[in-house]
Amino acid sequence: MLSPLLTDLYELTMLYAYVKSGKTEEAAFELFIRELPENRNYLVFAGLPWVVDFIENLHFSKEEIDYLHSLKLFPDDFLDFLRELRFTGRVYAMREGEIFFQNEPVLRVEAPIYQAQLLETAIMNQVHITSLIASKAARVYTVAGGRKLADFSLRRTHGADAGMKVAYACYLAGFDGTSNVLAGKEFRIPVIGTVAHSFIMAFESEEEAFRAYLRAFPERAVLLVDTYDTLEGVKRAIKVAKEMGVKLKGIRLDSGNVVELSKVARKLLDEAGFKECKIIVSGGLDEYRIEEIVKAGAPVDAFGVGTKVGTSADSPYIDFVYKLVQVGNRPIMKTSTGKKMYPGKKQVFRQEGRDIVALAEEEHPGKPLLELIIDKGKRVKPLPNLNEAREYCLENLNKLAPELKEIRKRAPYTVEISEKLQELYAKLKRELTEE
Amino acid sequence: MLSPLLTDLYELTMLYAYVKSGKTEEAAFELFIRELPENRNYLVFAGLPWVVDFIENLHFSKEEIDYLHSLKLFPDDFLDFLRELRFTGRVYAMREGEIFFQNEPVLRVEAPIYQAQLLETAIMNQVHITSLIASKAARVYTVAGGRKLADFSLRRTHGADAGMKVAYACYLAGFDGTSNVLAGKEFRIPVIGTVAHSFIMAFESEEEAFRAYLRAFPERAVLLVDTYDTLEGVKRAIKVAKEMGVKLKGIRLDSGNVVELSKVARKLLDEAGFKECKIIVSGGLDEYRIEEIVKAGAPVDAFGVGTKVGTSADSPYIDFVYKLVQVGNRPIMKTSTGKKMYPGKKQVFRQEGRDIVALAEEEHPGKPLLELIIDKGKRVKPLPNLNEAREYCLENLNKLAPELKEIRKRAPYTVEISEKLQELYAKLKRELTEE
Repeated sequence: MLSPLLTDLYELTMLYAYVKSGKTEEAAFELFIRELPENRNYLVFAGLPWVVDFIENLHFSKEEIDYLHSLKLFPDDFLDFLRELRFTGRVYAMREGEIFFQNEPVLRVEAPIYQAQLLETAIMNQVHITSLIASKAARVYTVAGGRKLADFSLRRTHGADAGMKVAYACYLAGFDGTSNVLAGKEFRIPVIGTVAHSFIMAFESEEEAFRAYLRAFPERAVLLVDTYDTLEGVKRAIKVAKEMGVKLKGIRLDSGNVVELSKVARKLLDEAGFKECKIIVSGGLDEYRIEEIVKAGAPVDAFGVGTKVGTSADSPYIDFVYKLVQVGNRPIMKTSTGKKMYPGKKQVFRQEGRDIVALAEEEHPGKPLLELIIDKGKRVKPLPNLNEAREYCLENLNKLAPELKEIRKRAPYTVEISEKLQELYAKLKRELTEE
Repeated sequence: MLSPLLTDLYELTMLYAYVKSGKTEEAAFELFIRELPENRNYLVFAGLPWVVDFIENLHFSKEEIDYLHSLKLFPDDFLDFLRELRFTGRVYAMREGEIFFQNEPVLRVEAPIYQAQLLETAIMNQVHITSLIASKAARVYTVAGGRKLADFSLRRTHGADAGMKVAYACYLAGFDGTSNVLAGKEFRIPVIGTVAHSFIMAFESEEEAFRAYLRAFPERAVLLVDTYDTLEGVKRAIKVAKEMGVKLKGIRLDSGNVVELSKVARKLLDEAGFKECKIIVSGGLDEYRIEEIVKAGAPVDAFGVGTKVGTSADSPYIDFVYKLVQVGNRPIMKTSTGKKMYPGKKQVFRQEGRDIVALAEEEHPGKPLLELIIDKGKRVKPLPNLNEAREYCLENLNKLAPELKEIRKRAPYTVEISEKLQELYAKLKRELTEE
């Protein structure tokens, strides 16, 4: 469970200032992006399970209050107030695995302003990494053309929490498994593994290493064949498996010209009667490289994908913002230089190939994407489990327009702003300018 | 404490295959980079406290063993063996905050091979994020010219663990504080905060919001002045503070032409007698932008730095590798396509402006950078605390050659390979080629 101290100090100082000023009106904050990142035609919303857990269980422990006391920033009666603080409001959110675009709220918090403000940092922290990676992994899924995908990124994700969320987000967006054992345990994701170069080199010869690994996992071993000479390695793997009379589940190519190597390896394996043996490719992969390999007709059955996906290296952050959109009955917007946003509580209606962003009270054709998930501080219905969310996400990805799935070309998607919302925007804009 | 299941599955399957093959010789693995990332002239080693904690406390709980059992990959007697497994070897490492370059081991593990192998993923996961951000933050520190620096990145770091390590690594490499309250609590880093646009907009007017915040923090409020019109905001802040008879600790500029705005703001503040009031700038900052602002002579006292540093956006990963370098008395190296590494246990000697990488048994002038930190599974001396490590890191950064501190130009640093190590490399290369 996340500590409520995993937050920016100003969320707490503002909380105090709100309370001290008697500012306890209900307010609404929405989480959204103003623009898509440069290399993304769409994003995938993810991370909701952690957000809901955090909000439902929000409270300050004695130790946490003691630390805040030590800062000498807050009076004692405020710390007593914090000790009793729970979230009492409502949260609306898109479904886990939903696709979203610019100007579309993915989540809205409605609560006394000091509560809604307090949630900002933790919600953003958790949704950011999970959506970032789900959005990256979705691109890998759409170019892999049904080939199996495994997340191998744990060693270079940004820490342990990212390692867990990367495994989760990759699986959500179409991967088949992860090497991260703890993610396997916590999320029931299939765990996948081969063998490392170090194991091969720890033995006097490649042959001896292959024997040792096949003895340990006679039916399940995927042998790494590129430690010395790749094609010699393939032949050796075949020879050893034949001599031992065991099945060769797969071989892994981690370097060199994998397109050519996989073609020759496939031939060698087929000729030897190992038609069931899979060819797994890894090493510096991302959607760009996988697309090349697939287009070159390489007979690859599965990709092991690491660092570049686990860090979303071509676009390592999403500019999510969590903005105040309403206080009491007053819609709010901020208009600083070049940064446009729309005021008021909103809903997104998904139609065929286009979305409408409208005020929450409006009715439009299409599927409303935001739904109530927390009311009076408690979840109103169970969240989908990961397999259900994955199914929903893949359904969304599979019906995406082909141009949106292009990984190297920008393609626009229509996000229309409803007339009423445009009018409200214009009205507030005028008022701000006149002030 | 990290779970031993926060690892790649193959570390466990290899562990089993090692043990089943009676392969329990002592081996040495070293953690290093083959090349510096494109935008980095040096890197900063960090993350050791987590590595040491993990290694000293390594054990599998009943719940973890039960999960492994459920995978149906491992026989029961092996799971019993795992239950009793502890780390019994040695770890050498560079000091926290040390500067390092290509081909230099930052850490070496010497232990029965199955133990040393098992540590790979967790060590890399923890050292990677911490060193990644320390290396980025160091660049910010060296261009900021003594101006104060605060980490404001928590909302967009890659998850909670990254949020903690970013705050830690930024402080290690010269930042003065963080907005992350939990990092303040856990690491005793000074916590820093201002106020958000939402607070200003929650009130009927900017003036009312300023009053509310100054009432709550009369001596410590930093007012955000760019919600509506920045210079009007500055004047309003001055007016309100004067009327209330309170000190204005600082103002924050988060948008617009901050070079010009800060100059005018400074003038307004000085004329009003608020010479002590600090000007804090934030918004999309990184070392490139900060260098521009500083060079333009903007009277900025402090920078609030977020996303681009907290994700190391221009270089979001480091290609750390953890390679087997010795088994028993046999030095090891791998020579796959284009990937060079040096065999055997090594030491790094730092001389004036150059390093020598040599075999561990060699003697060379200069300061040896790797030191024994864990022996027989237990730490041999206390690690420096964060403040001590920070002092050491800043000492290192301050004496870096000026060309290495250039953030836009590649500058080479001499990493010499000792003669003996070159000879060993050549000998193994010959043997591998002849095979």
